[in-house]
Amino acid sequence: MRRITFLTDFGTKEGYVAQMKGVVSSITDARILDITHEVSPHNVREGAFILWATAPFFPLGTIHVAVVDPGVGTERKGLLITTKKQILVGPDNGILLPTAHLLGDFVVYEITNPKYMIHPLSRTFHGRDIFAPVAAYIARGVPFGDIGTQTTHFVDLQFPLGEHQGNQIVGKVLYVDRFGNLITNIPQDILPNDVEQKKTTVISGSCQWDQIPFVSSYGYAKQGDLLVTIGSNHFLEISVNQGNAAQMLGLQADADIQLLFG
Amino acid sequence: MRRITFLTDFGTKEGYVAQMKGVVSSITDARILDITHEVSPHNVREGAFILWATAPFFPLGTIHVAVVDPGVGTERKGLLITTKKQILVGPDNGILLPTAHLLGDFVVYEITNPKYMIHPLSRTFHGRDIFAPVAAYIARGVPFGDIGTQTTHFVDLQFPLGEHQGNQIVGKVLYVDRFGNLITNIPQDILPNDVEQKKTTVISGSCQWDQIPFVSSYGYAKQGDLLVTIGSNHFLEISVNQGNAAQMLGLQADADIQLLFG
Amino acid sequence: MRRITFLTDFGTKEGYVAQMKGVVSSITDARILDITHEVSPHNVREGAFILWATAPFFPLGTIHVAVVDPGVGTERKGLLITTKKQILVGPDNGILLPTAHLLGDFVVYEITNPKYMIHPLSRTFHGRDIFAPVAAYIARGVPFGDIGTQTTHFVDLQFPLGEHQGNQIVGKVLYVDRFGNLITNIPQDILPNDVEQKKTTVISGSCQWDQIPFVSSYGYAKQGDLLVTIGSNHFLEISVNQGNAAQMLGLQADADIQLLFG
Repeated sequence: MRRITFLTDFGTKEGYVAQMKGVVSSITDARILDITHEVSPHNVREGAFILWATAPFFPLGTIHVAVVDPGVGTERKGLLITTKKQILVGPDNGILLPTAHLLGDFVVYEITNPKYMIHPLSRTFHGRDIFAPVAAYIARGVPFGDIGTQTTHFVDLQFPLGEHQGNQIVGKVLYVDRFGNLITNIPQDILPNDVEQKKTTVISGSCQWDQIPFVSSYGYAKQGDLLVTIGSNHFLEISVNQGNAAQMLGLQADADIQLLFG
Repeated sequence: MRRITFLTDFGTKEGYVAQMKGVVSSITDARILDITHEVSPHNVREGAFILWATAPFFPLGTIHVAVVDPGVGTERKGLLITTKKQILVGPDNGILLPTAHLLGDFVVYEITNPKYMIHPLSRTFHGRDIFAPVAAYIARGVPFGDIGTQTTHFVDLQFPLGEHQGNQIVGKVLYVDRFGNLITNIPQDILPNDVEQKKTTVISGSCQWDQIPFVSSYGYAKQGDLLVTIGSNHFLEISVNQGNAAQMLGLQADADIQLLFG
Repeated sequence: MRRITFLTDFGTKEGYVAQMKGVVSSITDARILDITHEVSPHNVREGAFILWATAPFFPLGTIHVAVVDPGVGTERKGLLITTKKQILVGPDNGILLPTAHLLGDFVVYEITNPKYMIHPLSRTFHGRDIFAPVAAYIARGVPFGDIGTQTTHFVDLQFPLGEHQGNQIVGKVLYVDRFGNLITNIPQDILPNDVEQKKTTVISGSCQWDQIPFVSSYGYAKQGDLLVTIGSNHFLEISVNQGNAAQMLGLQADADIQLLFG
């Protein structure tokens, strides 16, 4: 069974997402799953992060449609990207690229064939009129080359990783989740081996927080206490057990951070 | 494969929607899709608008269950409406009617047969106890005439369209979406042909906004600038590129508007 | 067709839920349905209430995955509970137990077999790495005894019911829904038979509301008026027709209430 996922900033109130699902359902019986429709409006980078964190858990052959598309109706292209494992469909603004790099061996097509679009084609909703039907026709087996032409011109986007600088690790907050956990770009494998025996210092701008315990999970810190841990994406997270670290520290996505251990 | 959609004002928190899906799943393997559960509480007109904008994108034979139902448990009837293309199920308060008119050739049944209801029948949740199982039994092939009796007595609802009055076009805001776009009831086909070469004046009450560009999509206006465009439903929209037109203009759903071009 | 449902406090924004669905989709074609992802963060009791109210409407054999899990990554166990009708999977913090008691004849297993977990196993997201794949493997027919070992040690949770005390009925608010309806733990069957001919007095703490009509549904009270009715779970509800009873009365979940009729 083929799967098509949707990731958008449309919210679920207005039926825009349902219109896309209706279009897909009119073309194929592939199963439809939601990644999210709550991306902050027009925030391509946030949508790219969520797709990148989520796509690898889906089965081989899954088709992901990602539509955060402030440039809809302008000259920006529509892209179909094939990778070693899955297929990506969406606007040419970088939203698909971190995932394409992660899944590997990717080839980019510009979507050009009007045969696989809905007519009359609106100029404000290509999610429904282009990306949804393209995904559905791919699920039905239409060859990639029928849908568009290969291109090497596209908006690229990659997430830089945190790194060692002297005795510090320097990185960024990639994302603040619903619980106020600060998810950084510091991968587990660059941390010292004995990190769980040490206390952590977090510095951001002119603020510094000392003596933060590095624990194996939230529940090992006292309720309301700041902690550092390895999150579910295997990146370092700054959290508060049953509390909100982003509020406590006054930090947001994109904040620069420095870490010291010991 | 048969599809059943749900549109409600229940929100997704409490499990009410899931109870309806559980009931359907106990009767049929038809696929279940959500239109929205975020209709403003008790706002029949808003639910009717979203159903009307969304239903046409679904395949032939889709069964739509729409439940915004402030009159649940009173004498208001339950309706099953067959149309040329799809089937509608919900309370007799007008929510289904704009879609019935749009889909055409419709026949209205009052749901009367207790055999296709859940017992004990609650008096506050007919979405679960009447409308969901009726939809599921229709998906299983139960004839319409078994479920109820044809009727010509029902609450009608139609959306009036904007129209020319002298040198103006006069209409209403039908809906304000998540992005603050003001979706009007002015269809594309009554606009002047050369509208995209002209500046638009929007008047509402004692307020007037002049020199608004008519563009083919949001991205053709400057960020933060007011614009007029044709939205994805092929109606005129008043928008702000990457901003919120409803907030900027202080207009809401149902606001009267007048347009001048030139 | 087998069904797997999800109930969490993850929200739908970040893709955490989608990661669980991706894991399930990689193992089985069982159909995935959402109960809710909007449980108040870390509120095990609220999650337990929603599961308990919703699960009975799903078909025989449905597998419910419930993850409200402040203790993730600590020594708390993971549970698989088989009942007469359905299967429950989640953390050992009580969230599954009211439903287990309700569905009856339940047997509790501790999930121990790493073969049915995702590796590398995160320490902060057992919903994705343990509970989702366990549910998927059960859907594929893996025997319960392969997944873990029977246990009689688990965190129990049951919802006490309201009861008569002298001429009063004494109970609690179990839950406040989206509409502000106060859902109590007072079952319909302990109410006087002639309750609908009587006026109700509600007492909570030092506040008392008199002369509240007991009606068969919301719509039988005047708009904006307080009413008492039997809700869709067949428990007594305190409501306001097209208004918010929780706000009007200043009551929340867990509030003690006393009722007098006559």
